[in-house]
Amino acid sequence: MKENSLWSRFQQYFLRYNDLGISMDISRMNFPDDFFRRMSGAADEAVQAMKVLEGGAIANPDEGRMVGHYWLRNPALAPNDEIRSQIEVPNREIFAFAKEVHAGGIKGSTGQKITDLLVVGIGGSALGPQLVSDALASASDPVKVHFFDNTDPDGMAKVLGGLAGRLPSTLVVVISKSGGTKESRNGMLAAQSAFRVAGLDFAPHFVAVTGEGSLLDKTAEAEGWLRRFPMYDWIGGRTSVMSAVGVFPMALQGLDVCAFLEGAKAMDAKTRSDDVPKNMAMLLALMWFYAGDGKGSKDMVVLPYKDRLLLFSRYLQQLVMESLGKEFDLDGKEVNQGIAVYGNKGSTDQHAYVQQLRDGVNNFFVTFLEVHSAGQGDAEVEPGILCGDYLQGFLRGTRTALHEKGRESMTISVPKVDAFYLGSLVALYERAVGFYASLVNINAYHQPGVEAGKKAAALILELQAKALVALESGKEPQTAEQVALAIGAEPEEVYHVLVHLGANREKVKHEMARVPSEDTFVIG
Amino acid sequence: MKENSLWSRFQQYFLRYNDLGISMDISRMNFPDDFFRRMSGAADEAVQAMKVLEGGAIANPDEGRMVGHYWLRNPALAPNDEIRSQIEVPNREIFAFAKEVHAGGIKGSTGQKITDLLVVGIGGSALGPQLVSDALASASDPVKVHFFDNTDPDGMAKVLGGLAGRLPSTLVVVISKSGGTKESRNGMLAAQSAFRVAGLDFAPHFVAVTGEGSLLDKTAEAEGWLRRFPMYDWIGGRTSVMSAVGVFPMALQGLDVCAFLEGAKAMDAKTRSDDVPKNMAMLLALMWFYAGDGKGSKDMVVLPYKDRLLLFSRYLQQLVMESLGKEFDLDGKEVNQGIAVYGNKGSTDQHAYVQQLRDGVNNFFVTFLEVHSAGQGDAEVEPGILCGDYLQGFLRGTRTALHEKGRESMTISVPKVDAFYLGSLVALYERAVGFYASLVNINAYHQPGVEAGKKAAALILELQAKALVALESGKEPQTAEQVALAIGAEPEEVYHVLVHLGANREKVKHEMARVPSEDTFVIG
Repeated sequence: MKENSLWSRFQQYFLRYNDLGISMDISRMNFPDDFFRRMSGAADEAVQAMKVLEGGAIANPDEGRMVGHYWLRNPALAPNDEIRSQIEVPNREIFAFAKEVHAGGIKGSTGQKITDLLVVGIGGSALGPQLVSDALASASDPVKVHFFDNTDPDGMAKVLGGLAGRLPSTLVVVISKSGGTKESRNGMLAAQSAFRVAGLDFAPHFVAVTGEGSLLDKTAEAEGWLRRFPMYDWIGGRTSVMSAVGVFPMALQGLDVCAFLEGAKAMDAKTRSDDVPKNMAMLLALMWFYAGDGKGSKDMVVLPYKDRLLLFSRYLQQLVMESLGKEFDLDGKEVNQGIAVYGNKGSTDQHAYVQQLRDGVNNFFVTFLEVHSAGQGDAEVEPGILCGDYLQGFLRGTRTALHEKGRESMTISVPKVDAFYLGSLVALYERAVGFYASLVNINAYHQPGVEAGKKAAALILELQAKALVALESGKEPQTAEQVALAIGAEPEEVYHVLVHLGANREKVKHEMARVPSEDTFVIG
Repeated sequence: MKENSLWSRFQQYFLRYNDLGISMDISRMNFPDDFFRRMSGAADEAVQAMKVLEGGAIANPDEGRMVGHYWLRNPALAPNDEIRSQIEVPNREIFAFAKEVHAGGIKGSTGQKITDLLVVGIGGSALGPQLVSDALASASDPVKVHFFDNTDPDGMAKVLGGLAGRLPSTLVVVISKSGGTKESRNGMLAAQSAFRVAGLDFAPHFVAVTGEGSLLDKTAEAEGWLRRFPMYDWIGGRTSVMSAVGVFPMALQGLDVCAFLEGAKAMDAKTRSDDVPKNMAMLLALMWFYAGDGKGSKDMVVLPYKDRLLLFSRYLQQLVMESLGKEFDLDGKEVNQGIAVYGNKGSTDQHAYVQQLRDGVNNFFVTFLEVHSAGQGDAEVEPGILCGDYLQGFLRGTRTALHEKGRESMTISVPKVDAFYLGSLVALYERAVGFYASLVNINAYHQPGVEAGKKAAALILELQAKALVALESGKEPQTAEQVALAIGAEPEEVYHVLVHLGANREKVKHEMARVPSEDTFVIG
């Protein structure tokens, strides 16, 4: 019978860690019976590779670095005392710092008790802190956390608008591992400018989290910032949420950092197992491999049925896509790997695109994230039915509706969303990403493709300076081609730069013509 | 020369509406030279089909409905006086209502001036209002807007926490076209309960936007709510942002509704053209067709380089995926259409997954959304370089870096983010979705696949009631199989229901065993 076979398949492919209360159900992924047997050699190798990585090997060969995020929640495993103290000392100092802030010992420059924290960071220096802050926020948090996570001046003005009148009681933490990220540098300057405009000395409000000796570190030292906390090269940006990058804002917000680390540590302990059917991270990685045929041919749709986990898929976009989206494998073969990730939250997304998931192009697999407890104070909406019962009903109903149409899904369940379980989920995905990278033979810990865009952007800014000079040296309106010829650049890039200048420099006048090649630009 | 050919291709495939200042560049999509010629017949038919739709035909045949969102911004085009007045009268009344709220003529039940609006809605009743509210918010808005967009009691508690102490000055608008959406009904009940707990009479604070005669409409009437505004069956949920659904919260927030509608009307006027190279919506639809081979084989990555447009891709997920994700075409042939949409904002996303876009699996095309003006008060971050220059530099740099690796992109540019241009962008995508649906011969205006999940969810809730009765009638701990047998249901579904009850009913005790089939449940 079909339904009996579903129950029996569920029992066969349901893994639960009873002591943690976390479970994963892969029974609605339609892998064939011999799949695990076929993958067992590769899976064993991946577990071994992870063991070597955790032992302190140079697991990121291109950058010649160790990969140490697993040590962050279990410093006893760090390969040497130096690294152990690089974890324990900053954490101790951050906890002491946060305690002093909460007690009013560290105040704003005009003596006000700290109420707000502005985090300036982007990518790995923002996504983790944003996830944690949003997922675990409560009305009783001693400090409210805000973010500059881009180089959009208008976006920053909006955030500053929300802080209006509270800068005297606001701390700013600028987070940049390399200390050279332009977006964060610009955010730092914008924040400093806001303090100046408010008549405040900014330095006593500013904290840096950065590599020792980085440009940011030197700036913070020279300007006499309130405090500096270190980052280390064995911590990757996208796996840095359990280093000072995440620990500092968490501690200031009053969140339970220790439980967060404990949750990750507990999941790590479970997922080091070389017994594949008991290793949740390996099962997850194998499901990704199965679904996308080891080539990322299906998108990963992540649907947490819980408002507090809204940012989890955005966090996973970086963790998964930046780690796995690689051109070459470890043998130098072109492979163009990766898995696309998207999703917001259920049941909200059911009203957005489950129509397509059920009826449309079958180019995805769903990961439902179930949170067993609806939370305190859940109220009756119909006789005997609570509001949160609907959330659960929609999750199960959608899982069934997708299954009926041959759309695959798995379900990860946690008892509740708190610091411990959030730490567990992050650790689960971190290790699954590492395993998957081994399965497809790639380096999960570098990001060579990111540099190209940054370099191209720097060229655009150089072009802009030259174009401005060319405009200033001419009295007559010039076309993009004329300016391009004068400065020896590509006309198309020059055209875009000139349009941008026309929109953002009062002195640059842009006269639109019928076609862009006839548009003219002049200083006037 | 390669670069000259880029400039020449740019000129050939760059469309700009000079009077609006909006442009689209499709030159970095690698369609072959004869693509437009091959598509011209289908494009002409799509323009014709749209003309018929706008004329008031039953363009949604399955539901026997007209499709009227284009009339909302140009009531003169409505097919008859009745529909015209269904647009003009509610708008007039909403504007008058908002004016009275802002002037203090309409107050909370204890006489307080209104400061906040809580929107209760989901899907089309939330995504549009959320986009508009977030994109256009300013510190001087007379009313701040909040959302219940799910049936998560904890999520609602978090929103209510943000309204702590301000319920006496809060209005609530419950938006549901059908009036029967469970998430919104639950949100309504939670909001009413919060008012009761605060010792307030809720009815004078509550407004409904719903179909006339719907369950919600009747409830609002019976309970004596402050006001009711109508929805009509010729307005689809995902295209309702320019009806009372979007107009009511916009007007309360003090946003420029008229400019929003004008922007859409202006874009509509441009994109009715049967001259394909001049029709931005048609070019957009044709690019989707080209990129995904008319089958959605590539994902649409939407990257607005502007914080205020962060929610635009989430809005497009519904508009595009719910409209285009269809099992059957208009001839009843199984086609499994659709296009997956994801993205957040640039340059932030560059630090999340541009690594994969450049180096990884090439299963996408990017739409860059460029906003020419960085906004007022942009500051110098290096000599001669403003903060917003970096935003532009990163957009152009990323476009180049992707192009170098054969990854395709197009760029849509608007002068700034304001009500007018936001309306234009929404209208551009609405029409592109309609055109694309014609190109692939599907009905863009129904959502038959959504019902299955709702029905399956209702069955789960019925099962839950039965399982609870079964537990109550037994004194001994029972397994899922025993309960399933007793109520004649599938053991797997029963198991999940029992676990949920164990986590959310104090009286239900769940004893975890080694495997789920041995777990027991008892009322204790």
